[in-house]
Amino acid sequence: MHQAYFPYDFLSPRRIVFGWGRRAEIGPLARSLGRRAFVVCGSRTLERSGALGELLGLLARADVEARPLATITREPEVDDVDRAVAALRQAGVAEGDLLLAIGGGSAIDLAKAVAALVQNPQSDTVRDYLEGVGRGLKIERPPLPLMAVPTTAGTGSEATKNAVISCYDPPFKKSLRSDQMIPAIVLVDPELAVSVPPEVTAWTGMDAITQLIEAYITRKPNPVAQALAISGLEITGDAIVEAYRDGSSRDARQRMAHAALLSGMALANSGLGMAHGVAAALGVHCRVPHGLACAVMLPVAMRVNRPVREAQFARIGRALSGRRWPSQRAAAEVAVERVEEMCQAVGVPRWLSEIGVRREQIPALVAGSRGNSMNGNPRDLSDELMTALLEEML
Amino acid sequence: MHQAYFPYDFLSPRRIVFGWGRRAEIGPLARSLGRRAFVVCGSRTLERSGALGELLGLLARADVEARPLATITREPEVDDVDRAVAALRQAGVAEGDLLLAIGGGSAIDLAKAVAALVQNPQSDTVRDYLEGVGRGLKIERPPLPLMAVPTTAGTGSEATKNAVISCYDPPFKKSLRSDQMIPAIVLVDPELAVSVPPEVTAWTGMDAITQLIEAYITRKPNPVAQALAISGLEITGDAIVEAYRDGSSRDARQRMAHAALLSGMALANSGLGMAHGVAAALGVHCRVPHGLACAVMLPVAMRVNRPVREAQFARIGRALSGRRWPSQRAAAEVAVERVEEMCQAVGVPRWLSEIGVRREQIPALVAGSRGNSMNGNPRDLSDELMTALLEEML
Repeated sequence: MHQAYFPYDFLSPRRIVFGWGRRAEIGPLARSLGRRAFVVCGSRTLERSGALGELLGLLARADVEARPLATITREPEVDDVDRAVAALRQAGVAEGDLLLAIGGGSAIDLAKAVAALVQNPQSDTVRDYLEGVGRGLKIERPPLPLMAVPTTAGTGSEATKNAVISCYDPPFKKSLRSDQMIPAIVLVDPELAVSVPPEVTAWTGMDAITQLIEAYITRKPNPVAQALAISGLEITGDAIVEAYRDGSSRDARQRMAHAALLSGMALANSGLGMAHGVAAALGVHCRVPHGLACAVMLPVAMRVNRPVREAQFARIGRALSGRRWPSQRAAAEVAVERVEEMCQAVGVPRWLSEIGVRREQIPALVAGSRGNSMNGNPRDLSDELMTALLEEML
Repeated sequence: MHQAYFPYDFLSPRRIVFGWGRRAEIGPLARSLGRRAFVVCGSRTLERSGALGELLGLLARADVEARPLATITREPEVDDVDRAVAALRQAGVAEGDLLLAIGGGSAIDLAKAVAALVQNPQSDTVRDYLEGVGRGLKIERPPLPLMAVPTTAGTGSEATKNAVISCYDPPFKKSLRSDQMIPAIVLVDPELAVSVPPEVTAWTGMDAITQLIEAYITRKPNPVAQALAISGLEITGDAIVEAYRDGSSRDARQRMAHAALLSGMALANSGLGMAHGVAAALGVHCRVPHGLACAVMLPVAMRVNRPVREAQFARIGRALSGRRWPSQRAAAEVAVERVEEMCQAVGVPRWLSEIGVRREQIPALVAGSRGNSMNGNPRDLSDELMTALLEEML
């Protein structure tokens, strides 16, 4: 049985529209937010495949003027945000403007940051608003309304209230965060993920699964988030492996898109844990893509936390396997084993050296993992323990 | 394992704030929606206990001008809505106005209807906008923003997009419905329910449980709604019996307020079923309070639908009992038995004659139960079968 954790807060996009082919509804949905949409786009594949042109045509037919603002094909950096905000200010923001993000977590995060900063001009750089770096400025005025159209099943950024922004000099990967940054409308069309290559399918999918698991076992639990997280794990099943092997599988793409959305709704309202903590450090110090970093760290993060979350792990084991087990211990073990099998099946490396980590980087990784995500980890992990864990993974 | 039902839409209040004593936060929350709050209040107990005065004081301190608009102590009727809308129009609606509902489902429904109609003045009466009666007018312009503060753990109206409005001449009980009618902010303070008498605790609580069950087994399933519904049933456990016996139990009041909220989020995004269909007819033809009507009908509605929803009933059985059962059949039977035990423990009558139904009213009840709720029932129920079922309950 679920425990009930009170009190809690729950934030959600007001409207979620989910379904294969439902990008056809983009026009009226955008029109319900405004008349002019500044578009942040995530991938050139989308342009080449004609999907972007189709969406822009649908916007025009609904009397929404679409203006390209930015295209981003890697995780957004401070400069990307600052440049897009400056461009938008130059274009001149008016009543009836909205942001439209079409892409993976990078595009959605960039759009969220731009929507917030263009309305909060106390500084010219997003850095001053990021957690733990800069001047600690806050998002006070409501951002421009944002509609998110995710094209990878991964980060769940379409349902969260933060945007993750990186910098490599000095190295940090931090969140711009505000309750007001949650997208107003989310349009999930799993068919848009059909063209995502297997490797990206694997990494983004493992990011979603990591979020579902960490939001479920976190030390900052929320009863609504946990209900959504466990249902996401139940629905996932073998979908990530199926989507990896057959990118055109409608069933697998639907399940993964749904799981990713639920993972965003869950993490927006609860904590995360060690896998996400270390993933941020792997991103800035070793340039490991976020999903891959989460995937590599997840099995270890599960083994470390299992002793203090046996009942939750048992529930995860039942959810992932779709069956019962003779004991709580057996079900909890199944949770970890299933995740290890998934990682193996979709080609996630087991060792940090395989993703380019060198022994001398470990102190920086340990220090860099102490962000907001790590605060949600069930166990307190000392620097000594973290160092030992990472060294064992070399 | 959950099945995934695609496509789906999911609407939710943007912000939910849940916790014992958190009414203290009402001021800034209301202020985030506007400067002047028209208050619809549900019960004179709230006034007498001083709770209302406390809330109005908190609003004033947050620079929100509170204006009493209506107090309603029974389910809202067409005239109640029309009168409140006229009063609000006379007061003059301005930028920065919001509606604030403090009460049970009746007060929240009345406030939702008023917020919508005052912005949509094509007719002077709500009747013209109700489903299945009147002229079929639609809510086109966005309603005034609404903040809902539920004081009974029951209808879940704080999270739904409809307002149920009754009329006794001619007799009907129909919904005013629009995606735009969902409250913007929901503030649930379970402590506000401490003064609710046992009988009302029982009826409103059984309404919530009926909603969780009907939204879970409905023929219009939604994967997010089902995840929330089953988690509500898991958390409920014995809470309704405990809240009935000891109204000051913090644990029981919290669980029931949470279950009621989840039931609203679930039903706003899925169908209901036979218990709610007949409850509407019992309301207008026999003046049976909504929660009591649901409670009386729930065991019968479960027995009727069980043959076509054995797996879902088994899951409900496990959720309500908090344990496993040797077979799906046994778990499904437990679901019905547990609900029957709950009904008995909180004094719900078993026979329709005990709530004033006469044999000659049955044809009108059968005809009057064919509303939107009944369309979600798992089984098609012919008039003959419905008549037989209700006659057996006399």
